Amino acid sequence: MSNSFGEVFRITTWGESHGGGVGVVVDGCPPRLTLSECDIQPDLDRRRPGQSSIVTPRKESDTVQILSGTFEGRTLGTPISMMVRNEDQRSEAYAEMATKFRPSHADYTYIAKYGIRNWQGGGRTSARETIGRVAAGAIAKKLLRERFGVEIVSFVKQVYDIEAKVNLETVTLAEVESTIVRCPETETAKRMIALIEEVRGRGDSVGGIVETVVRGVPAGWGGPVFDRLEADLAKAMLSLPASKGFDIGSGFSGILLTGLQHNDAIRAQQKKVFTKTNRSGGIVGGISNGEPIYFRVAFKPVATVMHEQETIDTDFENTTLKGRGRHDACVLPRAVPMVEAMAALVLVDHALRHHAQCE
Amino acid sequence: MSNSFGEVFRITTWGESHGGGVGVVVDGCPPRLTLSECDIQPDLDRRRPGQSSIVTPRKESDTVQILSGTFEGRTLGTPISMMVRNEDQRSEAYAEMATKFRPSHADYTYIAKYGIRNWQGGGRTSARETIGRVAAGAIAKKLLRERFGVEIVSFVKQVYDIEAKVNLETVTLAEVESTIVRCPETETAKRMIALIEEVRGRGDSVGGIVETVVRGVPAGWGGPVFDRLEADLAKAMLSLPASKGFDIGSGFSGILLTGLQHNDAIRAQQKKVFTKTNRSGGIVGGISNGEPIYFRVAFKPVATVMHEQETIDTDFENTTLKGRGRHDACVLPRAVPMVEAMAALVLVDHALRHHAQCE
Amino acid sequence: MSNSFGEVFRITTWGESHGGGVGVVVDGCPPRLTLSECDIQPDLDRRRPGQSSIVTPRKESDTVQILSGTFEGRTLGTPISMMVRNEDQRSEAYAEMATKFRPSHADYTYIAKYGIRNWQGGGRTSARETIGRVAAGAIAKKLLRERFGVEIVSFVKQVYDIEAKVNLETVTLAEVESTIVRCPETETAKRMIALIEEVRGRGDSVGGIVETVVRGVPAGWGGPVFDRLEADLAKAMLSLPASKGFDIGSGFSGILLTGLQHNDAIRAQQKKVFTKTNRSGGIVGGISNGEPIYFRVAFKPVATVMHEQETIDTDFENTTLKGRGRHDACVLPRAVPMVEAMAALVLVDHALRHHAQCE
Amino acid sequence: MSNSFGEVFRITTWGESHGGGVGVVVDGCPPRLTLSECDIQPDLDRRRPGQSSIVTPRKESDTVQILSGTFEGRTLGTPISMMVRNEDQRSEAYAEMATKFRPSHADYTYIAKYGIRNWQGGGRTSARETIGRVAAGAIAKKLLRERFGVEIVSFVKQVYDIEAKVNLETVTLAEVESTIVRCPETETAKRMIALIEEVRGRGDSVGGIVETVVRGVPAGWGGPVFDRLEADLAKAMLSLPASKGFDIGSGFSGILLTGLQHNDAIRAQQKKVFTKTNRSGGIVGGISNGEPIYFRVAFKPVATVMHEQETIDTDFENTTLKGRGRHDACVLPRAVPMVEAMAALVLVDHALRHHAQCE
Repeated sequence: MSNSFGEVFRITTWGESHGGGVGVVVDGCPPRLTLSECDIQPDLDRRRPGQSSIVTPRKESDTVQILSGTFEGRTLGTPISMMVRNEDQRSEAYAEMATKFRPSHADYTYIAKYGIRNWQGGGRTSARETIGRVAAGAIAKKLLRERFGVEIVSFVKQVYDIEAKVNLETVTLAEVESTIVRCPETETAKRMIALIEEVRGRGDSVGGIVETVVRGVPAGWGGPVFDRLEADLAKAMLSLPASKGFDIGSGFSGILLTGLQHNDAIRAQQKKVFTKTNRSGGIVGGISNGEPIYFRVAFKPVATVMHEQETIDTDFENTTLKGRGRHDACVLPRAVPMVEAMAALVLVDHALRHHAQCE
Repeated sequence: MSNSFGEVFRITTWGESHGGGVGVVVDGCPPRLTLSECDIQPDLDRRRPGQSSIVTPRKESDTVQILSGTFEGRTLGTPISMMVRNEDQRSEAYAEMATKFRPSHADYTYIAKYGIRNWQGGGRTSARETIGRVAAGAIAKKLLRERFGVEIVSFVKQVYDIEAKVNLETVTLAEVESTIVRCPETETAKRMIALIEEVRGRGDSVGGIVETVVRGVPAGWGGPVFDRLEADLAKAMLSLPASKGFDIGSGFSGILLTGLQHNDAIRAQQKKVFTKTNRSGGIVGGISNGEPIYFRVAFKPVATVMHEQETIDTDFENTTLKGRGRHDACVLPRAVPMVEAMAALVLVDHALRHHAQCE
Repeated sequence: MSNSFGEVFRITTWGESHGGGVGVVVDGCPPRLTLSECDIQPDLDRRRPGQSSIVTPRKESDTVQILSGTFEGRTLGTPISMMVRNEDQRSEAYAEMATKFRPSHADYTYIAKYGIRNWQGGGRTSARETIGRVAAGAIAKKLLRERFGVEIVSFVKQVYDIEAKVNLETVTLAEVESTIVRCPETETAKRMIALIEEVRGRGDSVGGIVETVVRGVPAGWGGPVFDRLEADLAKAMLSLPASKGFDIGSGFSGILLTGLQHNDAIRAQQKKVFTKTNRSGGIVGGISNGEPIYFRVAFKPVATVMHEQETIDTDFENTTLKGRGRHDACVLPRAVPMVEAMAALVLVDHALRHHAQCE
Repeated sequence: MSNSFGEVFRITTWGESHGGGVGVVVDGCPPRLTLSECDIQPDLDRRRPGQSSIVTPRKESDTVQILSGTFEGRTLGTPISMMVRNEDQRSEAYAEMATKFRPSHADYTYIAKYGIRNWQGGGRTSARETIGRVAAGAIAKKLLRERFGVEIVSFVKQVYDIEAKVNLETVTLAEVESTIVRCPETETAKRMIALIEEVRGRGDSVGGIVETVVRGVPAGWGGPVFDRLEADLAKAMLSLPASKGFDIGSGFSGILLTGLQHNDAIRAQQKKVFTKTNRSGGIVGGISNGEPIYFRVAFKPVATVMHEQETIDTDFENTTLKGRGRHDACVLPRAVPMVEAMAALVLVDHALRHHAQCE
């Protein structure tokens, strides 16, 4: 039941939706990396409610503060503690949640586990919990970029039944950020936005798929048995709120290929190794092979809808509950920086672990 | 790069395809559980090559020996060491593998990582590595069954494009074992077997989906953030050889539902809580809600095919390689006990961790 | 190089002497424990500089704030984040430390390790780092007391060559707190205080021994091999600043007994087991036997002295350095709550781990 | 209650005195180290009973077998599994132990913890458990020697009241091995041997001190807070059977120095840093400073004595028990390779962890 993630580059997140704030301690970051709040805040802004017309309007600046672990603009090698204060604490908006469990939210399961819960804004089940991940992920991304030449790009691949075609070899962060739905294909993005607005208008919600490509990972990262690179990525992605599935490379659709069709022929040019196709998704036997890593994460439609639904109260009596107040009809645009952050945390940890044992 | 899995109930596997043998150390098993080799061997027999006409014919008995951790037929609470000797060591069958990398196998990535590999039979990348997992999983399954009333049933849901319809509430181990392809639906099983034999006949291979249902997990197991039950299951499944995807509950197909359609209404009868539907798959916010847990794992077609394929040699020069000798046209029947084992390891570890903090 | 401690009840500390503050995240605390800042602050006050005439006069209130993990005065089972702001940041007092390494301080070794250091007030090598430990330890002590009936009493046993005789079966916290040197024997305490004042007067420092007794631990906590209770206590104590030794039960002086003299006869009265002597110190083979646990920690004299000493500068040129400003002539009175905290962290973690596997 | 030790270079030991055997899995060893049983067996022979006239005469060859993790004489980077079969299984010699608890042995505490124990030869509490540590330690020592130029020498410093004077800068393994008591000072060794023989003759036992020096550790290994190098060494040493104390550098005797006397002046010659004295014992603030590391471990007299002693039976009724059969009057000669092994395991793990984060 740990709130920590990673082995060498290890983060611990804390905080509820309501209370002093939310934060993260990053332990194991290499020393002498230039780092300030300016490296962190942009990703928090991408995660933040209220950033565009299609996301939930909670009004918080989510301003990050680095409390330790840096000196004169560089990391010390000691724990980096970061905090974001909670601001928008209208707990009256949640009064009904004190006595009723929201369907398909973790209200009931928290009670089943702990016998107690902070019902204000969902407490630790709130998506605010991901602030710590995104802040830590921003450091991980910087390390990957500056020390290893690794680049991660996540984007919205599908909303409900609207799917984008994206070139994984060329897609850029700028293209992703060019639309508020974070789909780099402008025309598809427009249709997604229209759908989200329509769905929100009728108090409902939709899910979809976030796809990610990681370019520049050298061959050799990962591990052969339990800590396979794809296994740690799968855990990272399924640890995100509302995620229900993960696949890598050919994934679920690879089932409709035979082995002969699926295998990636290996070639070399002047001792440089590559594969002619990349159905493996850049990882073979748990270890990167130098090709781009790409994977997909399925997110279910958000559980909060503006309709009356059957549920029980805290006395385990049947009742109904109708969502009110904030309503995020589609979590995908805000999930994009979360996916990137988790991918970065997995990769930087594996980079350092590979370095420890094998280099 | 750890070869260990689990926190409280923690296993460490070891062994290559060729060498002294393969095995596992189980640390953290509760004391006073009745245990002997008879509890382990049946699952190893289900995992073993040569068990039926549709799996690879490697001739090894895979007889397990418990070397420590039990006394007079009961566990001591100390580490349980189990070993299976390697027998069928025809390394000449692998001579060509000494100098060439098999496409979509981990031969090249092992070299990229370690700069050395045991090319005989794939060394540690061999599916023999899973013997330790299955042996440890048999203990985990026994603990779950006897101490917690939890039952795990995995089966072959889909081979290539042939999909079975299976009732998750009633499917039994006996039904699964009634067909050699481990699909509980007899008619579909026959078509799957025919397909596998046809594909093998032309030296090719096919993949598919293993589905699992876990019944009897009480509400409250799991954790809210990184160690979500579905996250640990995802990692466990993606750590299996040839797996490429995981989804839980509504999974990838849940994307085509809206929030209103997707939410599971909560009801209570005499204070007993249940949901009217189970799109969550028995886990909400990382914590079990008392409903059956069900998930799917996608396995790619086996990489070894009996055709000439492009690859490189160990000098990084282009060449070709043609599979010969053993050929497993479909890994799914043997993957079933592996999936069960990994699910059991995740669940028993979470059971003990929940007990530690919350009970 | 982890800044975390414990397995199930796991803490992560962060913070430098100068910067935003210092703090700790406690992960794995059981839910529903009543908890507020009032449970934490008293131990921080016992650790704080300026609390009496014989400790260093740094002027900081060290007021703790609980930022997460509690709701309506009870723990939630989620991470408890606690922070103390830094106040007394006279970095000019440390200007010379920017360019010179203090002898027998960790200035040089931090540079050797990280290639960078926060020289202000010692950065993370400052004794302020222990604030997080003491805050977390206060929670651990409360859990031990309320849920397990375990009581920990630490006291100053020896300062330089002045040694107290203390009855381990009866000594109380109140007796310890009755003297500013935290030696429960009033007459010896007076001599210790006089010595410390004399030593401080001549700009020098002295070390000594803190002894601890733990009463009420049931038989069965601990582990048989690496995680022996005494091994984890040893690690905990040697992780404290300035500690140089640890022994338990008969310890180093047990060497002058033969086996026949040293063995503790076991007796039972109405099935209640006890030993006639307790040279084992309450732990046999790594596991508690129900007798009081007692151990000693040796602390070296504080490295900061008001004399000119030979050292090198940051260019690795020979120079000298003279301590100035704050000067703690004896760390022992403030070390007492640190020792208690670390003992409590070890014990509560073992209590929960024992519960997980064996109960 | 883990049977694992280390983070990156991580070992897991298993096995009881009676049963299939004892062994260890070493996970995280770097690849391409030349390794065969010849590198392991010598240390096992130094640990083995029956090696000289002053140790217990149990007749077992303790022949180690490497089961996995090497190929053509070099490590693969995969888990190295090593096993020693049990041979001398005269369980009748232990019949009385089935119903009585030996005083100051872990018989009673194992029952208190697990509710079950293997009473044959002490089961997992047997000193045979250390075989796995010594085998793994031999690999660690080889790595330290070949890759880092680090040398570890342990020796018997004191038996009962007989103490040797040993030059830590020059003492060699050959000198240590030149006497059967493993004290490098020949004259003192003779007196120690005579004492041990005399004590054994009257059915009693004696303890003493093993001292260790580690030469060649570069400045920068270790960590600043919980995983201080001395903290991990302390845990490692207190995890050895019969150990009761640990101190490092000036240790307990440093208490009788003032700060001014205790501080190690830092000097540099041509940018090479050293200290004029080494009261710190080669570690400052948890991190090595490049000076030799030296520490002491106190071992109590062996609990098995040939006299009738008060104890209880397994029904918790008072009775007496008289040791018979094997009797090791002094554990120190055999403890020397155990101490070396544990020191090596700590150091190699810290070397790799330092490499991971800081290099």
